[in-house]
Amino acid sequence: MKIRGQHYRSVWPIGEDAFGIIDQTKLPHEFATLTLRTADEAAHAIKSMQTRGAPLIGAVGAYGLALEMRRDPSDDNLTRVHDMLAETRPTAINLRWALKRMADALRNRPREARAALAWAEAAAIADEDVAMSEAIGRNGLKIIQELAAKKPGQTFNILTHCNAGWLATVDYGTALAPIYLAHDAGIPLHVWVDETRPRNQGASLTAFELGSHGVSHTILADNAGGHYMQAGQVDMVIVGTDRVTAHGDVANKIGTYLKALAAKDNNVPFYVALPSSTIDWSIDSGRDIPIEERSEDEVLKMAGRLPDGSVAVVDIAAPGSPAANPGFDVTPARLVTGFITERGTCAATPEGLRSLFPKT
Amino acid sequence: MKIRGQHYRSVWPIGEDAFGIIDQTKLPHEFATLTLRTADEAAHAIKSMQTRGAPLIGAVGAYGLALEMRRDPSDDNLTRVHDMLAETRPTAINLRWALKRMADALRNRPREARAALAWAEAAAIADEDVAMSEAIGRNGLKIIQELAAKKPGQTFNILTHCNAGWLATVDYGTALAPIYLAHDAGIPLHVWVDETRPRNQGASLTAFELGSHGVSHTILADNAGGHYMQAGQVDMVIVGTDRVTAHGDVANKIGTYLKALAAKDNNVPFYVALPSSTIDWSIDSGRDIPIEERSEDEVLKMAGRLPDGSVAVVDIAAPGSPAANPGFDVTPARLVTGFITERGTCAATPEGLRSLFPKT
Repeated sequence: MKIRGQHYRSVWPIGEDAFGIIDQTKLPHEFATLTLRTADEAAHAIKSMQTRGAPLIGAVGAYGLALEMRRDPSDDNLTRVHDMLAETRPTAINLRWALKRMADALRNRPREARAALAWAEAAAIADEDVAMSEAIGRNGLKIIQELAAKKPGQTFNILTHCNAGWLATVDYGTALAPIYLAHDAGIPLHVWVDETRPRNQGASLTAFELGSHGVSHTILADNAGGHYMQAGQVDMVIVGTDRVTAHGDVANKIGTYLKALAAKDNNVPFYVALPSSTIDWSIDSGRDIPIEERSEDEVLKMAGRLPDGSVAVVDIAAPGSPAANPGFDVTPARLVTGFITERGTCAATPEGLRSLFPKT
Repeated sequence: MKIRGQHYRSVWPIGEDAFGIIDQTKLPHEFATLTLRTADEAAHAIKSMQTRGAPLIGAVGAYGLALEMRRDPSDDNLTRVHDMLAETRPTAINLRWALKRMADALRNRPREARAALAWAEAAAIADEDVAMSEAIGRNGLKIIQELAAKKPGQTFNILTHCNAGWLATVDYGTALAPIYLAHDAGIPLHVWVDETRPRNQGASLTAFELGSHGVSHTILADNAGGHYMQAGQVDMVIVGTDRVTAHGDVANKIGTYLKALAAKDNNVPFYVALPSSTIDWSIDSGRDIPIEERSEDEVLKMAGRLPDGSVAVVDIAAPGSPAANPGFDVTPARLVTGFITERGTCAATPEGLRSLFPKT
């Protein structure tokens, strides 16, 4: 993705003893990057959501673990840093997948080789994520082309929730990758962007991405999507996901379930875009996915730009009232029209997933 | 309702040439009242949502019209001010109901009597609204008692959307009236309060009301209610409404439809509380209810308290991205468990409504 004419990934190596990320807590008010030099710094960046998005935090976790292998490549330290990073966020499975892949690649290798091996493995995870996102984009484009062909010459309206764009992956995105390709292919697109309270990743990140790429879009309060579906103004929903079970249940940003219900009620196709690293083959039911509880401050306060351009945090709720803040919800497979993966599209069923990803 | 030990209604006469309202745009940061002296000031207060809530703006419109009868009680002026006030907000029917009632009470009466008659009629509308809210509270209390009896000794969890409390009516409220009575009756209650973006009437007004009355509550992002319903942590939903059709479709604050879908999907009873002045007998389908489009600034900006206690408005979205802001959506009657009215409870069907309100 280009920002002010310069190509960026969402994570990049700096020499062999540091890596860079975009500080996403500063967007859309400021485009700032951060240099991370230790696994602890990586853990802090993930926890504080300076970097976020299920595929991306897998790559950031991998780089964080790799840094630690330069300092102490022992088995004990490998286990410790693996576990420490895995605990930073509980719902997204990609982080665990990437950390396990790192540990598997290192554990039976000589200690003195581990730092270089780890750095190369982290880079491979990042590169493969880019390739998977590109493939998701191509596979999703086919669906958009088929659906858009039913209303030739008319604008094709897609609704998305949260941010599953290039800021949520290493590049391109999951849910947004097909949208970028469809836009580039000349399909007349318009995107309804759920603001995605409480952290507003839609209004701040997705709108920023779509605006940068020149894709027509409109921000909506999270409450409004159902109304536009009832009015026939949504042709398709595409979202990302933090974990898909073997049976096809989908954990994604809180509020996704409500939009899936509205899509079903109005016969709007509801697609979930994901790399296969997001599939948790170890569980069947979405009820077994741990749901992250985040700080009530994310609900009770809001960051924004003051008229003088400075950024301030304001209290927006009745003083003394508490808030609860579950980060994710689970959309049952029965509400999902299909999965868009790097290997193609499939039904949200155990058989559908296994048709693309046979047991290895 | 008592604020700092003093009883308030949400609208009150001041002599016979002015009336007072609470400036709800200042809540929860400041409790301020306004004195309105002309119909134009009343219209401005309704449009800017200094005063809001379907039943309340009916009473405010009535007082606004009454003020104008002191200045010029002619038929022409009566028609003009009726139409001017009716256009301030399109979705809530109570405003039209109250203005029509005022005009009907005045049109065939001597001009010299109209000012006094109008003032008395506005007071009657306000008093009757209080009585209807009290009756809604008693009728809703019975439902809460029945449902809460199924889980004795356990907390009974109610979810509500937007504000349908005493700030939305002249006193007591619609959706919140049964909650206040149940709390006062010693039923162990907890209320999930949807923050209700974009104007945050839940986090600012409902949380303020419930906190003032000592009712246990928790603010949620609008995205989160479905998750708590899936988790079995919502025993009942109660909302207010701005217009109910003769067939039982319900216009209410944007996002209500999504919560109704989630309630249905999880077998959570979904009740709508309303005075009969909210029923629009002239239309059957919710598709015929006009939906107010409000300023995109309500989505793109947010007001809140800075650390120094002052109130500021911050920009929260990506610069240059547009927003859309429909104020209401329509919940189909099939998703509504029942209506709670001043005359009792009924099914959300034409027959149900007519059983309580036979054709007159």
